[in-house]
Amino acid sequence: MDEFELIQRYFVWPEATANPAVVLSVGDDAALLSLPAGEQLVVSSDTLVSGRHFFADADAFDIGHKALAVNLSDLAAMAAKPVAFTLSLTLPAFDADWLTGFAEGMRSLAQQHNIALVGGDTTRGPLAIGITVMGSVKSDRVLRRDRLQVGDVLVVSGQVGDGGFGLAVANQHPLALTLSDDQQQAVLMRLHRPQPRVALGLALPAMANAGMDVSDGLLQDLQHMLKASGDLSAQLLLDQLPLSSAAQTLLNSDPRFVLEQALSAGDDYELLFAIPTSALPVLDQLSQQLNLPLTVIGQVMQTTQQPTLDLIWQGKPWPYPLPLGYRHF
Amino acid sequence: MDEFELIQRYFVWPEATANPAVVLSVGDDAALLSLPAGEQLVVSSDTLVSGRHFFADADAFDIGHKALAVNLSDLAAMAAKPVAFTLSLTLPAFDADWLTGFAEGMRSLAQQHNIALVGGDTTRGPLAIGITVMGSVKSDRVLRRDRLQVGDVLVVSGQVGDGGFGLAVANQHPLALTLSDDQQQAVLMRLHRPQPRVALGLALPAMANAGMDVSDGLLQDLQHMLKASGDLSAQLLLDQLPLSSAAQTLLNSDPRFVLEQALSAGDDYELLFAIPTSALPVLDQLSQQLNLPLTVIGQVMQTTQQPTLDLIWQGKPWPYPLPLGYRHF
Repeated sequence: MDEFELIQRYFVWPEATANPAVVLSVGDDAALLSLPAGEQLVVSSDTLVSGRHFFADADAFDIGHKALAVNLSDLAAMAAKPVAFTLSLTLPAFDADWLTGFAEGMRSLAQQHNIALVGGDTTRGPLAIGITVMGSVKSDRVLRRDRLQVGDVLVVSGQVGDGGFGLAVANQHPLALTLSDDQQQAVLMRLHRPQPRVALGLALPAMANAGMDVSDGLLQDLQHMLKASGDLSAQLLLDQLPLSSAAQTLLNSDPRFVLEQALSAGDDYELLFAIPTSALPVLDQLSQQLNLPLTVIGQVMQTTQQPTLDLIWQGKPWPYPLPLGYRHF
Repeated sequence: MDEFELIQRYFVWPEATANPAVVLSVGDDAALLSLPAGEQLVVSSDTLVSGRHFFADADAFDIGHKALAVNLSDLAAMAAKPVAFTLSLTLPAFDADWLTGFAEGMRSLAQQHNIALVGGDTTRGPLAIGITVMGSVKSDRVLRRDRLQVGDVLVVSGQVGDGGFGLAVANQHPLALTLSDDQQQAVLMRLHRPQPRVALGLALPAMANAGMDVSDGLLQDLQHMLKASGDLSAQLLLDQLPLSSAAQTLLNSDPRFVLEQALSAGDDYELLFAIPTSALPVLDQLSQQLNLPLTVIGQVMQTTQQPTLDLIWQGKPWPYPLPLGYRHF
């Protein structure tokens, strides 16, 4: 099977050309897209490499889902509407079962978010999935990370730490193995099939000053926001962190382990954003409307001398050093 | 060095934010681009994997140049103006010299074509370079491959086959080694530093009905055009193929080897396009203006029963079977 046949069989999806933004999809030298008048283009690329971003023996459906999900999460973090994506797939060998599962995982998520696969390439080599995702946004509705304001409250969606707990289960960490089977399955699901918060992202510019997604760990990502916003400081209330039932089960026996996952493990793909206190009532409405927890976890502070990030736990400073999160290289 | 430092040091280029289309470059969850009003977005992705698309010990500057060049060639083939690109770089290890050379090769070509590097990621793994390139085009000025008309003459830019000769030199093919040192250097240069025909592409919609770039071999690429245009047929006059001095040197001793490179080797990155005969006088003007040979090599024919691709050599059908060109998977 050559590249053209492979693409035709697994990656030419009729719904792509039904998307009104898609003028030309797979088949020419490039794809052609038409954005709504007055909207800007949001672009992000993320590559997942076997053995680094997922286990080599991971389920193909999950790999397809996750590769697109982490890219959609970047669009969500900019408050962009998904439009189209390209896929660069490097495969060690032709494997029909694997390709079927991979394409299904990717396609079902693409359909949920009405994003069209419009191009890319396949080549032979160690398994890697490169995706470039494109979205559109009105220029005055972009959610940037460098617009934090002193006094803003910090909010995170969903629950944090489950990506880390999922990895701990997969790595047979003794503490993670004390979780019930259901809890283990739940955190593995969160690791393998993260749900990009696209609807939340689209709603945020009406209330939020700044936002980003939590992919490298809450602490590291928050530090990026504080730095980009002019070296601001912040206080995090660790007792407020929204934890899953699995995390809560472990909290009494090993709070340090639990909070390290919540603060420093990557792979959560929740949104972290900042709103003025005046927007708190709207936050509750939005949470109900989306059926998604939106939890205040801290506040942006004026920097006095050096920028600081204070972690408060049970009324006192958190006593342990914390790893900064996932470092890519 | 972590990913953020690496990107900051090698891949944040001040000229990117000077590009008026770039609203936000590297640093947020995604880049933000503003296209000229009324223009459509052209998108293409191409990944180069070490050991398949370039030699593992190839010069880093050349790898950086070529990875961007092959993507720019896809924009040229759509008649699109380059705007921005993302880079997904997978590296086996941190190597400052290699990264410096690679970034310089990519950056100098990017500057020539005023295209901004606006995002991407780096990760550890076997060397691979994934690029997604974006351009803009007025909707009535797109150069598509599926618009060939019966009677159109087929034109190719520059010279064809040198990518194949370069590979033959690199592989120490006995015939290629009979070339002079200068000729060997010239074809290697064509292999390692192809020049995307961006200016030609932008000029073509005024005269051409259809076009594409020659990346997988002239024969295979022409067949894709004929098929996409409704199973048309064509005649190629092999005596007309524009050959470099290196190719001409070998033509008498082994015409079969020479024409196989010209017709079936990939990696030329010239444009193949079709114009009505009425446009032939304008073709000469354009060739002079761009200082680039534009050579008529055949004609599009009506299909009578089955689509055919007739190869004529010295007044007779070409007697040898020809490989179809580079097959990616």
